[in-house]
Amino acid sequence: MQQRAVLTIAGSDCSGGAGIQADLKTFTANGCYGASAITALVAENTVGVQDIFPSPPLFVVRQILSVLEDIEMDALKTGMLFDAEITKAVVHTLKKQYGSGNIPPFVCDPVCVSTSGHSLLNPDAIDVMIKELFPLATLITPNKSEAELLLAHGRPGAYPCISTLEDMYQACKDFFTQIIPGPQAILLKGGHITATLEDVDRVSSAYPEISVVRDGLFGENMEILKIGRDISGVELVVDMLYERSGAVAILARPRIKSTSTHGTGCTLSAAIACGLAQGLSLLEATKAGASYTHMGIENAVPFGKGHGPLNHLHSISKILIPRPSPSNPHPFTKLLIQENPGIWKDYVEHDFVKQLAQGILARESFVHFVKQDYLYLKYYARAYGLLAAKSTTFPAIRSAATTILSILHEIGTHTEFCSRFGITADELEATEESAATMAYGGYLLDIGLQGDAIKLLMSLLACLLGYGEVGLWIMKEAAKPDSWVKLEGNPYLHWIEDYSGIEYQKAVKAGMETIEACAVADPPSSTRYEDWCEVWRKCTKLEKSFWDMALERS
Amino acid sequence: MQQRAVLTIAGSDCSGGAGIQADLKTFTANGCYGASAITALVAENTVGVQDIFPSPPLFVVRQILSVLEDIEMDALKTGMLFDAEITKAVVHTLKKQYGSGNIPPFVCDPVCVSTSGHSLLNPDAIDVMIKELFPLATLITPNKSEAELLLAHGRPGAYPCISTLEDMYQACKDFFTQIIPGPQAILLKGGHITATLEDVDRVSSAYPEISVVRDGLFGENMEILKIGRDISGVELVVDMLYERSGAVAILARPRIKSTSTHGTGCTLSAAIACGLAQGLSLLEATKAGASYTHMGIENAVPFGKGHGPLNHLHSISKILIPRPSPSNPHPFTKLLIQENPGIWKDYVEHDFVKQLAQGILARESFVHFVKQDYLYLKYYARAYGLLAAKSTTFPAIRSAATTILSILHEIGTHTEFCSRFGITADELEATEESAATMAYGGYLLDIGLQGDAIKLLMSLLACLLGYGEVGLWIMKEAAKPDSWVKLEGNPYLHWIEDYSGIEYQKAVKAGMETIEACAVADPPSSTRYEDWCEVWRKCTKLEKSFWDMALERS
Repeated sequence: MQQRAVLTIAGSDCSGGAGIQADLKTFTANGCYGASAITALVAENTVGVQDIFPSPPLFVVRQILSVLEDIEMDALKTGMLFDAEITKAVVHTLKKQYGSGNIPPFVCDPVCVSTSGHSLLNPDAIDVMIKELFPLATLITPNKSEAELLLAHGRPGAYPCISTLEDMYQACKDFFTQIIPGPQAILLKGGHITATLEDVDRVSSAYPEISVVRDGLFGENMEILKIGRDISGVELVVDMLYERSGAVAILARPRIKSTSTHGTGCTLSAAIACGLAQGLSLLEATKAGASYTHMGIENAVPFGKGHGPLNHLHSISKILIPRPSPSNPHPFTKLLIQENPGIWKDYVEHDFVKQLAQGILARESFVHFVKQDYLYLKYYARAYGLLAAKSTTFPAIRSAATTILSILHEIGTHTEFCSRFGITADELEATEESAATMAYGGYLLDIGLQGDAIKLLMSLLACLLGYGEVGLWIMKEAAKPDSWVKLEGNPYLHWIEDYSGIEYQKAVKAGMETIEACAVADPPSSTRYEDWCEVWRKCTKLEKSFWDMALERS
Repeated sequence: MQQRAVLTIAGSDCSGGAGIQADLKTFTANGCYGASAITALVAENTVGVQDIFPSPPLFVVRQILSVLEDIEMDALKTGMLFDAEITKAVVHTLKKQYGSGNIPPFVCDPVCVSTSGHSLLNPDAIDVMIKELFPLATLITPNKSEAELLLAHGRPGAYPCISTLEDMYQACKDFFTQIIPGPQAILLKGGHITATLEDVDRVSSAYPEISVVRDGLFGENMEILKIGRDISGVELVVDMLYERSGAVAILARPRIKSTSTHGTGCTLSAAIACGLAQGLSLLEATKAGASYTHMGIENAVPFGKGHGPLNHLHSISKILIPRPSPSNPHPFTKLLIQENPGIWKDYVEHDFVKQLAQGILARESFVHFVKQDYLYLKYYARAYGLLAAKSTTFPAIRSAATTILSILHEIGTHTEFCSRFGITADELEATEESAATMAYGGYLLDIGLQGDAIKLLMSLLACLLGYGEVGLWIMKEAAKPDSWVKLEGNPYLHWIEDYSGIEYQKAVKAGMETIEACAVADPPSSTRYEDWCEVWRKCTKLEKSFWDMALERS
């Protein structure tokens, strides 16, 4: 439940694929709380940039201060800073706010040019960025063009074109010799550089200090995954992470042929910032960020007419059962009842129950019910035996065994009840099982064989909870003025008192809490959730049939 | 995987709790693609609004057009529109873009005043909003103060204070008589109105046309959930949804005592827009939106010094196993290998394997291995028998049975092999099981008893995949120049050819695909994922022990 806070300082992309929008989506998908100071409103879409309206530098400062004076940030990132004035304002505000050395992990994406070729940073801003912003950064994340631009800055002539992995390595080194003090690390992105597995192997054997992260590729002992796939010629995307300490790593993954690349840089730097906020090492955060971004491209959903956005939602799914909260301490049980209202009502407000509550239920119906329930409880106890066999902790084994003992106790009251109606223990034991009893009992054992402990628990729930509900409902109705319920002189009063009583309600509560704890510990996928609900529905219907069967006797 | 697109036109809250930031977080958490046109930059935090910098109306238009001309929207929402000029610009742009009647579902949150009391809409804008924006809206979502302000607009004197449910009902009716043409529906939010269950019961019996949605409360046949809780006096939050058709519903839920309410209105209207984009009815979308918002407050994580933000992440969780993609068609298998590299390598590059590949493995080791493997395969076949018993479809039952038949065929090759080494079938059958065999076999049956079909499949995987990996690895090594592997004259060549051969590799591929399909159909929670991985690790270690046992013989 812990959430780290991350602030992005960047432009706004109204179309939602890049800028603070991509950042906020990335923060959200990666479990972080996102805040954002906007440097400029950009009217853009997947086709290109139509117009830019910068924020006054002072208003950028205002936004940053509103955030930082109120919420402690676990990481920062910057994107498009637009011009020298805004860049200076950002530098000044961060220095003032954090002093020297106290800044949280900070990823600086030195955005100069958009994917669609539009200039996003005035040239005079580059000087400020290099000299004043980079020294604050944990990591800067230039692509090929940005690296060339930054490395040529303040020097005569252009920086040589970066086109091989060797060039990338040289450029990384040049960064640390040319730019002093500079950032703590650089991630030189190779999205615009062509490379293959052979290139990676060549560079890594020529420079043993370079470690190769094959996260997106097949590693050692993965022959079964490679079979039938021609890997050697595959075009790769290779990023290089160079830390001031000298540690250098290559991150390689297959290039995806896709036009859904709008906002790739924003997403990557935002995702790395999340990892750093969550305490990952720079390498781990970069790996995680690169993987998140890669899969965002690969799973892109088509939007727009040009370079579409990444899919920022690829790594998240919906939680189906809310966590217990003060206003809803048993959300799973509530859902089960709420989403299947008809069959639940048919069960707990069954005519059998109503006649019983009025005291007018035919005696033979009740006797038939008790005899069949006696036989059903044998299955029920055996199902708890299976539950014990499926349990992997002593407390779980104890709980199942204790329930068996309670059921055996309940058997006692059944026997006693029957003897009052003149039915001997032998007669009870010799009762032939009705189809309803066999159907229900067999179903419990089937689920017990088929599934895991939670599924088995689900099958035991409708009986446990339903009788508790019936007991409470009758008592609630009885308490109303001029109630239709008749407790005085009711031959079945004892039965009503049993199921509405404290002892049984304790068991109901324990049952609910077990199932709620299961849902919290192991939140189900939609398939599994549907599977659990199906078991609940089936048992609810089997309960109803059980009472149908008893009533048919009268 | 389908994502609906939603556009918000609103202010930017740098602190991330309200405005387009809350909207984008809500869109993301609810599975929608978010775009955003910003009407004003607001320097604010949980304590209050520090400053506002509006966008030029024309630039608001630019942003909306950049979005709408490129991406088709499934729903729209508006939040703070700041002044009459911007409101007019928004109205004009939407009308121009959609013509009359073609606008997608549109939720208008008529933001006038911030939670912290700061005016967010100039009074002259209200007129434009009422007369020109509301007629475009599917739903408007005023709170008490906004409703009073809007209903008093253009009339002498103030609108009477809305303080009861009856007042709310009257206000809704007044909206539709006073504001013509007006929106299609109004959701009057009761966050600032005190109500109890008694109030709800009173109003719903006085006005039978009002349906009561008790989503956040306990409904019928939920006595077991209510027991021990005093519900009658509980303070409620009641929203009223009034549709032009006359349909009116009350949505009631318990009031949460919380200061984490910054951005509640933005979040609610954004969540309703998501529901409408996804094709829900207005009532369903409102229920879902109200529930998302309610839980966002109840699960809030403390941020900031004042009224903190909602938790927009409460309803999502991380997907642990990526979906198969062209660059990674077997992500789950890859994860299993990648995340447990040491034990997997210890198994598939075991000394037993190396000696076998070199042809120097002691004959008695190999014979011991084959004899024990023969006994192990009995467990393995029985485990597939359990899998058949746990299967609920004919194809799954067929697949398990077919595998048993393949295993029985493998038994034949074992018997044949042994006879070549002078071991009779009887002798083979009478072999005493070693501890390694019993440990592994017993583990398979334990998992088969304990868990569901997927967990059982997991336990059968290390054996299936590992032998395939060993076969391919030996052949790959053999293909290298001056290889250490010796195939020619190798007494175990037949074994190597078996496991690297097409038939066995087909089975490996089928096994991988089964497990990948399971992970896609039923994505595991972290608990379940860890449980599966633990089974994989255990079996990988048991495989290594099996070969240790064989080597110890020499």
